[in-house]
Amino acid sequence: MARPQAFDKSEVLHNALRVFWQKGYEAASVADLLVATGLSKSSLYNTFGSKHGLLLAAFDAYREDRVRDMQSVLARGSARQAIETFFRMIIADARAPEFRHGCMSINQAVELAPHDPQVRSRVEEDFQRIEDALTRTIERGQAEGSVKPDRNARQVARLMVVVFPGLQVLMRAGGGSDSARLEEALALLLSHLE
Amino acid sequence: MARPQAFDKSEVLHNALRVFWQKGYEAASVADLLVATGLSKSSLYNTFGSKHGLLLAAFDAYREDRVRDMQSVLARGSARQAIETFFRMIIADARAPEFRHGCMSINQAVELAPHDPQVRSRVEEDFQRIEDALTRTIERGQAEGSVKPDRNARQVARLMVVVFPGLQVLMRAGGGSDSARLEEALALLLSHLE
Repeated sequence: MARPQAFDKSEVLHNALRVFWQKGYEAASVADLLVATGLSKSSLYNTFGSKHGLLLAAFDAYREDRVRDMQSVLARGSARQAIETFFRMIIADARAPEFRHGCMSINQAVELAPHDPQVRSRVEEDFQRIEDALTRTIERGQAEGSVKPDRNARQVARLMVVVFPGLQVLMRAGGGSDSARLEEALALLLSHLE
Repeated sequence: MARPQAFDKSEVLHNALRVFWQKGYEAASVADLLVATGLSKSSLYNTFGSKHGLLLAAFDAYREDRVRDMQSVLARGSARQAIETFFRMIIADARAPEFRHGCMSINQAVELAPHDPQVRSRVEEDFQRIEDALTRTIERGQAEGSVKPDRNARQVARLMVVVFPGLQVLMRAGGGSDSARLEEALALLLSHLE
């Protein structure tokens, strides 16, 4: 029997995530994952069950981080300003070298969600969480006066949820290199708050 | 020397495309491509130079078809109605079984554009073509009276270009299974024409 291996789970998930993110799920081999995480093969299988189990655990850790980031951005300052910051962060993050592999949710959405029910339900839940968080923020803005009261908060949030992955694809593919396009699109989107 | 092989180029590109689309570029092997296209190895290399050359040729043939589709939809009926039809077709196409692998441009954008300058410049050009076609259609609507004259046509088109890949990702990932989300987002987007 193999000796149990001690490891830092959050570190392992972070390193596994980087492999899935850079290579995509299919192209990431178990050998790649063992090198990146420092796990033994038996530790990987005992702890996560399979390569797919490791993907889901790494994806969940990443999703929790992103939800926390989103909630913290949306809580800061006036609701109108917080929502603008949220969208400007998507653009800035997509330009940052460490995000050159794109948003993991969007990548998983494109690569795996159509065929993998466990990934799909997570991606669906993420879109719903973004819609709900934006709706609550718009409602907060209406209460505090930074967003016009006659707007339908849920409807504006729904358009924003569609724009969210659209911005990411555009940034990733180069359609965001035209910064006038992004600025004008964002200004028009934010006009729904005014 | 191998005997030259006669083949229907558009048929070959169509079949090659299906392989790239279903498997992604990296995972599609030359063996897969030979089976799907019926080409011999020497024909593939003599005609397209490489697997990458075949990808670009297949992608270009697909892009031409999609541009023709877009132009034909945007030319039909009032500009206001044509633009709504354009977005409803994105949603309907994404639901159709033959498109379950998603829009090839979006897939290529996510998989290859960040690292492959020849794919990237094509995807950038596609986004620019969509922006230009929508701008011209909105201007036509302003001339004929189906779109409000005080709208900034280019700006509205720019928001629409961001929404376009956003809708596709949402449909592909399951965020589009909530049809109220899509309907409300689309209604708000189209309100920029009214």
